[in-house]
Amino acid sequence: MRIIGIDPGTARTGFGVVEKKGGEFIVVDYGLIETKKDLEPAERLEHIFAEVTGLIKRHGPDVLAIERLFFNRNVTTAMSVGEARGVIILSAARAGIRAVEYMPLQIKKALTGDGRAEKKQVQEMVRMMLKLPEIPKPDDVADALAIAVCHAGASRFEQLARDAGKGSGKNIRKICRDAEAE
Amino acid sequence: MRIIGIDPGTARTGFGVVEKKGGEFIVVDYGLIETKKDLEPAERLEHIFAEVTGLIKRHGPDVLAIERLFFNRNVTTAMSVGEARGVIILSAARAGIRAVEYMPLQIKKALTGDGRAEKKQVQEMVRMMLKLPEIPKPDDVADALAIAVCHAGASRFEQLARDAGKGSGKNIRKICRDAEAE
Repeated sequence: MRIIGIDPGTARTGFGVVEKKGGEFIVVDYGLIETKKDLEPAERLEHIFAEVTGLIKRHGPDVLAIERLFFNRNVTTAMSVGEARGVIILSAARAGIRAVEYMPLQIKKALTGDGRAEKKQVQEMVRMMLKLPEIPKPDDVADALAIAVCHAGASRFEQLARDAGKGSGKNIRKICRDAEAE
Repeated sequence: MRIIGIDPGTARTGFGVVEKKGGEFIVVDYGLIETKKDLEPAERLEHIFAEVTGLIKRHGPDVLAIERLFFNRNVTTAMSVGEARGVIILSAARAGIRAVEYMPLQIKKALTGDGRAEKKQVQEMVRMMLKLPEIPKPDDVADALAIAVCHAGASRFEQLARDAGKGSGKNIRKICRDAEAE
């Protein structure tokens, strides 16, 4: 299974492509999509869409895993992250691959077993699992790789939701709320 | 000048296409893009993108005018509206037309002269200016037409920003803050 993990943002979008073979993870590619502040919003979104579309074409992932933040600093940031998420999810849809979403708590839990783990701890787990000499920088890139790695581990959530039958979106949200409440 | 106005949302996106000839407005088309709740987020976004792309192709507007809300009820709503905005702005960019943004205060002010006007008052102005027998329903559609009509009147904001030189985005925001403070 090949996964592209995405940490979305209009200014900086981190990506990480990871291949899972058996229990082993292999890093295929990772990096940062940056857009300049002086570009029009439309140009920034078009750039992100083109870059992600290019990455999917180049690496042929089976699935795109993207971070979903419910608790953002403010509404303006949330809307801006939403815009980036919109075009990234669209690029997956148009390439015919699934887009799955994970919340920070799920990602932390999948990697460290603790939903309240420190960022540094999550990043160190990513480094070890992917056998990287150093934690990739900036954080957006490390986070994107964490989301990709999370997808394999956290697919348990999806399976649970599928087993629960219809309305998987609602069930995933319920499972996540339960996890949040733990 | 032909304008497509958009009131964005993942569940319901209102649109209104308006032609301005001299001081007269002619309604070209208006309606609602709806996506079902049981669709995956990716499918909803793909549907919105395809519909807006189709409208631009069919009606050939010079510009797409879209509502920008800074003060949403909550962060989850803001992110969801942001996702719809992202794919709508992208559809304008890919069709090679400009996407411009207006805040509710600007729209109200452009149509009624009062940034704090009641929704009903704005809708009645839209009906009168477009010579419609009734206010189009639901609100998303009336709002989309209001945004399209606003663009012609509110282009004064853009001109001011352009005159102020570089960083028009910042200047527009400053002008809007000044307007908010009025």
